[in-house]
Amino acid sequence: MKVVFLGTAAGRPTRTRSLPCIALQFEGETILFDCGENAQRQMISVISPSKIGKIFISHFHGDHYLGLGGLLQTMSLNRRETPLSIYGPQGTIEYLKHYFASGHFGIRFEITLCEIEETTIEEDLYRIRSFPVDHGVATIGFVFEEKEKRGRFLEEKAKSMGIRGKLFSEIEEKGRVDIDGKIITLEEVTGPPRPGRKIVYAADTLPCQKVVEVAHNCDMLLHEGTYLNDEDRHGTYHTTVKEACEIAKKAKVKTLVLTHISQRYEDHEIREEAEKWFPGAVVAEDLMEIEL
Amino acid sequence: MKVVFLGTAAGRPTRTRSLPCIALQFEGETILFDCGENAQRQMISVISPSKIGKIFISHFHGDHYLGLGGLLQTMSLNRRETPLSIYGPQGTIEYLKHYFASGHFGIRFEITLCEIEETTIEEDLYRIRSFPVDHGVATIGFVFEEKEKRGRFLEEKAKSMGIRGKLFSEIEEKGRVDIDGKIITLEEVTGPPRPGRKIVYAADTLPCQKVVEVAHNCDMLLHEGTYLNDEDRHGTYHTTVKEACEIAKKAKVKTLVLTHISQRYEDHEIREEAEKWFPGAVVAEDLMEIEL
Repeated sequence: MKVVFLGTAAGRPTRTRSLPCIALQFEGETILFDCGENAQRQMISVISPSKIGKIFISHFHGDHYLGLGGLLQTMSLNRRETPLSIYGPQGTIEYLKHYFASGHFGIRFEITLCEIEETTIEEDLYRIRSFPVDHGVATIGFVFEEKEKRGRFLEEKAKSMGIRGKLFSEIEEKGRVDIDGKIITLEEVTGPPRPGRKIVYAADTLPCQKVVEVAHNCDMLLHEGTYLNDEDRHGTYHTTVKEACEIAKKAKVKTLVLTHISQRYEDHEIREEAEKWFPGAVVAEDLMEIEL
Repeated sequence: MKVVFLGTAAGRPTRTRSLPCIALQFEGETILFDCGENAQRQMISVISPSKIGKIFISHFHGDHYLGLGGLLQTMSLNRRETPLSIYGPQGTIEYLKHYFASGHFGIRFEITLCEIEETTIEEDLYRIRSFPVDHGVATIGFVFEEKEKRGRFLEEKAKSMGIRGKLFSEIEEKGRVDIDGKIITLEEVTGPPRPGRKIVYAADTLPCQKVVEVAHNCDMLLHEGTYLNDEDRHGTYHTTVKEACEIAKKAKVKTLVLTHISQRYEDHEIREEAEKWFPGAVVAEDLMEIEL
């Protein structure tokens, strides 16, 4: 599982930071969270647009979705046939209908639009839950949860119970085998289930109790850290680096990654502030990749 | 006068080419021709968005206008107050109304939208004329014409006619002076008017007779050279490099700049082909600047 930061700026791009877009690569599928302007160019040689199955838009401020049109056009030029699902907060369908009517969009593959709020999207290997945050306009964050995985196969135990040859693949496939009338289940020859990994993307938000709840014990919290102080925030619906660190501490997250960095700061200022309040916090950079 | 190539790709961006956007800097104003995705980031340290007074969109294929939203948002974040005019072909007003309804666009300065076809926009120092081209959808090209300038001041002649001291500034300002009852006009003490410079941007088009006409004798023709041959063009409404060169020759243009280059070619292939048919033709690169 890999998280790739395609854009880490806030509001407007800088020379080193493109607008918000985070890609999660998991079991051959790529899931995008936000799709700021220039996302498709940031992907070159890093992410294949054809692998993108789902795009989640946190909200409809321009910096979080205006890369969608170009990306979809390029997918279409690449002769994509695979359907694509786009999820976003309340208003998404109306907004995207307008967006697609803003020019000649000759998209030739199926796009499904879904408005979600507190919603769970269930897949075989993972689920994604959305949750509302506090950003002045309809905005949602996302929890990616890998499902619990089967425990490790206990080969010695299996052998001692009489499993041999093709019975190994049979018990994997069917979940049980019959040895001379005695049923052995897969659970008997595997260790305890292993919990799946959990990643939370909190999107743009003021400090929000909901994030503390959903991010509890997660492996990675991707949180905005737009400002260094309340004066710079100037009444906008964003979080300071210190506040993001406090949320991560309360939620006992393993790794905190700060993103959505205002262009007014030097990177080292953000890093130093984060280190004070959550030692080990990562400040995202464009094209940074984190393996989990 | 300076032309800055902010994006020179066709259809989709490459590592070295961003989507179409050309800036013309003239007498303190910047005029944009097309505004592809990522235009605002290409401008960083090169073009000040606050200097942009007019934006001309050739047509509403995504690669030519999807950078507009981000640029306008950034202008607004920069507290722009100066009005902005956006010009485009038939359909522009409807398309842009949809575009601005596709999210939370909190633009706080005045934007005027104008649909043009064969239209002349008259300013003190220049005029811009639009003309239809052949691209399958409503598409226009643009002629920028600097107005004829006053001839050079003939200082010796002026002195011999009695102009002294503050009379020099007076004749400049008022166009005439009175020396002991004798009227001397500015025309008498200046050389012949100097013709203005002319730049033509042909936009996306099949080879088009109209371009030959409007580009006649121009100082610079910016023409698409998307493909190297008809097979690659594959029935699309674009021009090959050879055809663009032939148009430039017929129109007797001084400088031909090829842009809108397909991602399938290496730069040297385009340059070599252009050199065969129009020696000295320039192949545009991102952030290339040409002074006139």
